[in-house]
Amino acid sequence: MPKPKKAKESLTVMTEMVFPNDTNTLGNLMGGNLMRLLDIAGAIAAQKHCTRIVVTASVDNVQFKESIPLGSVVTLQAKVTRAFNSSMEVVVEVWAENIPAGTKIHTNKAFLTFVAVDQTGRPIEVPPVEPETDEEIEYYEGALRRRQLRLVLAGRMKPEEAVELKEIFK
Amino acid sequence: MPKPKKAKESLTVMTEMVFPNDTNTLGNLMGGNLMRLLDIAGAIAAQKHCTRIVVTASVDNVQFKESIPLGSVVTLQAKVTRAFNSSMEVVVEVWAENIPAGTKIHTNKAFLTFVAVDQTGRPIEVPPVEPETDEEIEYYEGALRRRQLRLVLAGRMKPEEAVELKEIFK
Amino acid sequence: MPKPKKAKESLTVMTEMVFPNDTNTLGNLMGGNLMRLLDIAGAIAAQKHCTRIVVTASVDNVQFKESIPLGSVVTLQAKVTRAFNSSMEVVVEVWAENIPAGTKIHTNKAFLTFVAVDQTGRPIEVPPVEPETDEEIEYYEGALRRRQLRLVLAGRMKPEEAVELKEIFK
Amino acid sequence: MPKPKKAKESLTVMTEMVFPNDTNTLGNLMGGNLMRLLDIAGAIAAQKHCTRIVVTASVDNVQFKESIPLGSVVTLQAKVTRAFNSSMEVVVEVWAENIPAGTKIHTNKAFLTFVAVDQTGRPIEVPPVEPETDEEIEYYEGALRRRQLRLVLAGRMKPEEAVELKEIFK
Amino acid sequence: MPKPKKAKESLTVMTEMVFPNDTNTLGNLMGGNLMRLLDIAGAIAAQKHCTRIVVTASVDNVQFKESIPLGSVVTLQAKVTRAFNSSMEVVVEVWAENIPAGTKIHTNKAFLTFVAVDQTGRPIEVPPVEPETDEEIEYYEGALRRRQLRLVLAGRMKPEEAVELKEIFK
Amino acid sequence: MPKPKKAKESLTVMTEMVFPNDTNTLGNLMGGNLMRLLDIAGAIAAQKHCTRIVVTASVDNVQFKESIPLGSVVTLQAKVTRAFNSSMEVVVEVWAENIPAGTKIHTNKAFLTFVAVDQTGRPIEVPPVEPETDEEIEYYEGALRRRQLRLVLAGRMKPEEAVELKEIFK
Repeated sequence: MPKPKKAKESLTVMTEMVFPNDTNTLGNLMGGNLMRLLDIAGAIAAQKHCTRIVVTASVDNVQFKESIPLGSVVTLQAKVTRAFNSSMEVVVEVWAENIPAGTKIHTNKAFLTFVAVDQTGRPIEVPPVEPETDEEIEYYEGALRRRQLRLVLAGRMKPEEAVELKEIFK
Repeated sequence: MPKPKKAKESLTVMTEMVFPNDTNTLGNLMGGNLMRLLDIAGAIAAQKHCTRIVVTASVDNVQFKESIPLGSVVTLQAKVTRAFNSSMEVVVEVWAENIPAGTKIHTNKAFLTFVAVDQTGRPIEVPPVEPETDEEIEYYEGALRRRQLRLVLAGRMKPEEAVELKEIFK
Repeated sequence: MPKPKKAKESLTVMTEMVFPNDTNTLGNLMGGNLMRLLDIAGAIAAQKHCTRIVVTASVDNVQFKESIPLGSVVTLQAKVTRAFNSSMEVVVEVWAENIPAGTKIHTNKAFLTFVAVDQTGRPIEVPPVEPETDEEIEYYEGALRRRQLRLVLAGRMKPEEAVELKEIFK
Repeated sequence: MPKPKKAKESLTVMTEMVFPNDTNTLGNLMGGNLMRLLDIAGAIAAQKHCTRIVVTASVDNVQFKESIPLGSVVTLQAKVTRAFNSSMEVVVEVWAENIPAGTKIHTNKAFLTFVAVDQTGRPIEVPPVEPETDEEIEYYEGALRRRQLRLVLAGRMKPEEAVELKEIFK
Repeated sequence: MPKPKKAKESLTVMTEMVFPNDTNTLGNLMGGNLMRLLDIAGAIAAQKHCTRIVVTASVDNVQFKESIPLGSVVTLQAKVTRAFNSSMEVVVEVWAENIPAGTKIHTNKAFLTFVAVDQTGRPIEVPPVEPETDEEIEYYEGALRRRQLRLVLAGRMKPEEAVELKEIFK
Repeated sequence: MPKPKKAKESLTVMTEMVFPNDTNTLGNLMGGNLMRLLDIAGAIAAQKHCTRIVVTASVDNVQFKESIPLGSVVTLQAKVTRAFNSSMEVVVEVWAENIPAGTKIHTNKAFLTFVAVDQTGRPIEVPPVEPETDEEIEYYEGALRRRQLRLVLAGRMKPEEAVELKEIFK
């Protein structure tokens, strides 16, 4: 098994401007374009962790509570939370900043999973993640529950076997 | 309350080719680009249902089980499943076709929600959905459970209050 | 000769939104961008008919009578009309919908031809087209006349030899 | 009526490189992308002639005889041929050059028409075109016949009334 | 005069992947696409410093010593070095990382200047920059000499008046 | 050594429209997008001179004095000025035209250098440039001084050895 790596070694910061073609009729960033950025930021963080080619395996539920207008500066921060054999969960946080207006808001938090693959696309084992800060430890521990939810939603685990997940519904 | 509309009136079919810039290092469609297409197809279906401007409210967990190579023809089919006041759930199904190879596979099924808004971005009530086929009725009924999951994941509903959702973990 | 295939088997529906970068100074879809969509929709329909790689051979006269504003939903419907050895004529119809305004208009009808080729770019014979509906039969029959016009315009047929075409000028 | 302007005053030269995303599965420029360039080059030439905003009215039959591989340099040359009230016919010629291979071929000649409009989209009269060279005169004279063909194809002129056009079928 | 701000408050980190359409015939990032990223990263850093809309005033000499292949992860780091009335100099450093190959190289360092403007495009005074680290102080001090070079190159200062610049040619 | 070629043989004219996505918050062409066009125009001129693949080696200081609004027609004219072994200096001039407003201004002049390479990326000797007009001769002669400045800025030449460059600071 590959040697463990610290969560922070995968930290990826991405800063983007919202251009006209990224916006909807109301002049705000379209949800799908933000999803595209989440995927790129997450993939780079996963690559940094495993030093391999990675492919997207899943994107967890993403909620869009805030509109991000044209000209905003969008900052994405991605970090690996936990690894499972050949897959890695990554958390991506998003902030939108309207610099002339002096506002900066936290707009999204998303969990994505990526799989490390070789040149032929076959999965490869990745290093375990070593969380250090309180936040990293919390993400690390929650990863199991989120993974069970993904498996249940994919029909690959029976709800009654999702021990950690069931716990929260008691 | 607006007059109910049939689910099938919102049906939206979108066909796309996978171009070089849409692909990753392995020559397959990047997950984030497919998310962008899901969002556009879903938004058009939601618009057809409510005849209003819509904005993306959430994307449920999406799983990428199959790789979709460069040159593939991707077909997305979107349909509104159920409405809740000003929000609509849309199901989008995706098929990828390699025409010269004679293969066509079902690659994804995703649920997105959209909110109808006026020109100032304020939510507006939308028509109820009238499901007709067995599949439409199944989607209509499952929508409540998926909505509870979204609310729980967003921290806006306590897990113990998610009656329909809890049912499946018993 | 390959076995005939029905016209409807090639039916391709494409739905697109008009984004800011697709528009001209007046905020309407530029003609050239619509041509690009016609070509993609037509190529997919031709691919479906012959299950081969296809390349564009010609686009017949296209007229732009209606302006299609930013935010419109554009629907393209493409279907093979007739085959000639290795080439296929495809008809593409276009509708533009302003959903919040409740308008949907037929904006274009275009005929394109595609040639089926192998990996080295050499032409390959394609299946004959079997028209079924009245409309498909009308397109099938008119294809000969349109083909003569293309050959005359390309200087590859003398006007006096274009029997079907001459007929309409009598 | 605006003062006549010389054909050559509208001359527009456009040079483009073929990038990966412009190509099809065989690595050649897609027909639809070339159409998009024809439209932009033609629109600029028409704008230069009438010093107004212009919109595309039609694209005549375009034939693609040569494949243009990735990395090629594409040169488009556009010039107004003749004006009819508020519309202008533009001829666009295309050359594709593979510089390292030392080849340069003439790949397309296309006729497009544009209409001059004011800020509200209403047609505005344009200056007549003054052809000077033999080629410009030939284009000027042929414009009438091509215009009749467009009108016949659009169902706005009866074939038997297309005097100049009928001439060539005798 | 606005209150001074620390250099580090403008720090902007941008991470990008090299996609197929960004590359030249050899499969490496085109110089012009990297220039585009330098401009966006620099503009965001300048915006952060002055909390205003900014426009690019100049880009100093940029040298491309290393090729950056398709699939690389490009990291740009931008920071304001010094302000002059309404203009700010920004330094942008670029690293290219081939993660699967385990290589990360410093590829570029560039100086750009931006001007803060109001909504009508008129220049507005910006806060002075307060450098703290040795590197920030060195950039701060060198900014005067680089500014003289820009003015000489623009023909707005006589070489003999460029006191700091002349010093290095003695 | 390859046979000399005339400067004018490399002349490249590029005409572009400013589209929405190319603009900043004020609706003007972003500096970085103009840099991208300078690079493409320059690379084509250099390719024409040496009939080889070329890669960008450097871009000299570029100044943006004029704003270029959405809808403008941008014309770039590139020509090789002088060759040094495997590298070529190219001058690119830019004009921006607002056709409906009847204005055309010279907005930029930039010098870029390109290196001719073989398929493996190794530098290859290029033909000397033969200047003919007064302007071409002036560019040819100034090329030496600009080259020294580049080498000094890159830390590859000591300022005191830059004989031609020092001359202007006396």
